[in-house]
Amino acid sequence: MIYPDDSLTLHTDLYQINMIYTYWQAGIDQQPVVFEAYFRHEPFNNGYVLFAGLAHASAFLDKLKFSTSDIDYLRSLALYPETFLQYLAQWRLTATIRAPHEGEVMFAQEPLLQVEGPLVDAQLLETALLNMINFQTLIATKAARVRMAAGHDPLMEFGTRRAQELDAALWGTRAAFIGGFNATSNVRAGKLFGLPVAGTHAHALVQAYQDDYAAFKAYAMTHHDVVFLVDTFDTLQSGLPNAIRVAKEFGDQINFQGVRIDSGDMVVLSQKIRQALDDAGFTQAKIYASNDLDEYTITDLKVRGAKIDVWGVGTKLITAFDQPALGAVYKMVQIGEKKTIKLSDDADKISTPGKKQIWRTPSGDVLALATETSIGTPLLQDIFVAGQRVYQTPTMTDIQAYASQRLASMPETVTCLQQPDTYPVTLSPALAAAKAEVIQAMQHQHLEN
Amino acid sequence: MIYPDDSLTLHTDLYQINMIYTYWQAGIDQQPVVFEAYFRHEPFNNGYVLFAGLAHASAFLDKLKFSTSDIDYLRSLALYPETFLQYLAQWRLTATIRAPHEGEVMFAQEPLLQVEGPLVDAQLLETALLNMINFQTLIATKAARVRMAAGHDPLMEFGTRRAQELDAALWGTRAAFIGGFNATSNVRAGKLFGLPVAGTHAHALVQAYQDDYAAFKAYAMTHHDVVFLVDTFDTLQSGLPNAIRVAKEFGDQINFQGVRIDSGDMVVLSQKIRQALDDAGFTQAKIYASNDLDEYTITDLKVRGAKIDVWGVGTKLITAFDQPALGAVYKMVQIGEKKTIKLSDDADKISTPGKKQIWRTPSGDVLALATETSIGTPLLQDIFVAGQRVYQTPTMTDIQAYASQRLASMPETVTCLQQPDTYPVTLSPALAAAKAEVIQAMQHQHLEN
Repeated sequence: MIYPDDSLTLHTDLYQINMIYTYWQAGIDQQPVVFEAYFRHEPFNNGYVLFAGLAHASAFLDKLKFSTSDIDYLRSLALYPETFLQYLAQWRLTATIRAPHEGEVMFAQEPLLQVEGPLVDAQLLETALLNMINFQTLIATKAARVRMAAGHDPLMEFGTRRAQELDAALWGTRAAFIGGFNATSNVRAGKLFGLPVAGTHAHALVQAYQDDYAAFKAYAMTHHDVVFLVDTFDTLQSGLPNAIRVAKEFGDQINFQGVRIDSGDMVVLSQKIRQALDDAGFTQAKIYASNDLDEYTITDLKVRGAKIDVWGVGTKLITAFDQPALGAVYKMVQIGEKKTIKLSDDADKISTPGKKQIWRTPSGDVLALATETSIGTPLLQDIFVAGQRVYQTPTMTDIQAYASQRLASMPETVTCLQQPDTYPVTLSPALAAAKAEVIQAMQHQHLEN
Repeated sequence: MIYPDDSLTLHTDLYQINMIYTYWQAGIDQQPVVFEAYFRHEPFNNGYVLFAGLAHASAFLDKLKFSTSDIDYLRSLALYPETFLQYLAQWRLTATIRAPHEGEVMFAQEPLLQVEGPLVDAQLLETALLNMINFQTLIATKAARVRMAAGHDPLMEFGTRRAQELDAALWGTRAAFIGGFNATSNVRAGKLFGLPVAGTHAHALVQAYQDDYAAFKAYAMTHHDVVFLVDTFDTLQSGLPNAIRVAKEFGDQINFQGVRIDSGDMVVLSQKIRQALDDAGFTQAKIYASNDLDEYTITDLKVRGAKIDVWGVGTKLITAFDQPALGAVYKMVQIGEKKTIKLSDDADKISTPGKKQIWRTPSGDVLALATETSIGTPLLQDIFVAGQRVYQTPTMTDIQAYASQRLASMPETVTCLQQPDTYPVTLSPALAAAKAEVIQAMQHQHLEN
């Protein structure tokens, strides 16, 4: 590396720094503004998203300032004068940042983040905040779909090796827990977030012993609550009978939990395994399955009568395989007292102006101007106020319970996996009027030129 | 966070630690083994992959040891005795690790990594190495496809906000450079890797001034080599004429580079913009485009006559949107002198036993046992020897040039975007014989039980 990686402050797009330089030179860098992040369509044809990403975003904001090496690097670009670099070196966060609770059920067009403060702050934060919020919200939502398919079955997140680099594995498995997963295989995630960790052994153990029986026996001598992986050589001819043999030999000493399969016809195999386990008296033993599972394959396996009790989900969850990006954007909605908009030739890309609050009411969500009076439960909460963190991250168990409870409060027609209804999200009359007014004024102004 | 994030060593699956405990208890943790990572099918229906990920993998391996907090956390799980925890605390890497150069053209079934050393080392490294290599190889490959579609046009990586968390943005844009991109918008990637950074301004600048002309003028007063984003309000009625007006007013002072569009009908808009720029005398000005581009949309826009000169590529590249995971696996191929295999009920999942070398020959690649004599150029190089790094990461320019040259040496029928030929990868007679022998022996042994 050319410079030490001692700060995440430059984890942003160059154009943010370029714009800040223009604002600073023009003397408008401290202009009060409001920016909001929102997405235009729910991912996976889902009816909602589960919001996630605040813990990482807050940690990022806590440490946000330009390091000496950041300034040295910017100087090396020869794009900015020294006075501007000194201004950046002295910059500190003073913005107020609002967001829903992690685990909140959110919908298209609703602000997931609101940044209110000096123009410089709002511009500097955009890229990294979107980078974290987009991904973690996507994975929490995907996880909630998998949870919906799995019913009350235990769900394990096994995707680290297929995740998009280290942070995706780490923060993705935290998001999966928010969406309803029970445990992760990622030990670092267990360490940092207090998530339950799970996993027993891989094919390599059996290969090391070249023999199922010897491998299971060695494993049984060192572990309790054991699950044997039975498909290294031949599931029904070798893996399963040897697992049962070792389970019988070791008895209570190992508290045999069951077997895992990672390949083959899961319906037929799981039925035969269930029969064999039952015949051997292990009626409480569970069948664990992994192998490119997602909400669709789990639903299909259940419908087709697979006898699987515990699901290990990897690649398809941790990458949100069928839609690997949530396209949340971040738009200026107010500058000074003036409400702003982005018009664009695509109607879909027109933003809604004005600093907002989201109200959850029994008949749906209402987006209102922040100045309007309360009409329900407000979803945007203060996370940072004037640059200081005021939000305490709840325990993971509490966040997961919150998500579960918020989902349960939604109509089943909205939270179902296939062809969900659109949840009603409307603009308050005042916001709708403001939007129409701003669009008209802008079109008038810019078409006149 | 419950413990400090002071080590990446626990960025692994729990089952690795569980197996290491079994090996240690059984006294086989120092058994010499060889593991190899390989994938089964090229992503995107592409004919090859470009290997990437060594810089991060090497940095990870350099620092690999269990921190005090790692051991404290493992102790808290109450799964392992204190003697085993002390063993882990004292563990140091002693394995030898081989890989191709970053930027090498590689194919299905070929080892992308080879880990030779004590069983404990090989097991501990698996998850994190796959996590890095899988992702970066995927993105370098996707980038090479976009480069193929773009011909010699400049390509900018703009995907940070849609990447799967911070590491994916950072290491993904480095991989994109390996695959042929010219610059990145991610300033931290510029700082750490010396990549060229690019970007001018966003819609927010125009919104801040509520006016294209005022915004472009303010920007022009602070920047050279300027590109104006013209689609904030109305591309042809406001953005473009104001860009031209400011370009004329400022003349040489700003070295006007062109305009960027981010929405609308790119074919029609770019043609009209080209005409207007030419009419205004800016025949050298370029048209920059961004908006969910990938190799398919770039090809389509070119075929349909869009007048676009520079491409900003984001979401579809940085997430490898159409296939967001490369499924490389990591299998034990040898233990002691014994070649091993994973059979499985899926024929596709049967591994090829034995420590290998890959030879590139004029008639294709040959996978051979490492003990066979040279028949071409060997692709696996020493990266770490006995736990010490011996590989110096080349400059980014050198890695990119290497990738480009290696791709150019391949048949066009293999590197083309659509329906590529399968490049010949064969097993040497000795390796084929060894594989047949091991399969037979294993089936015999395990079906007998």
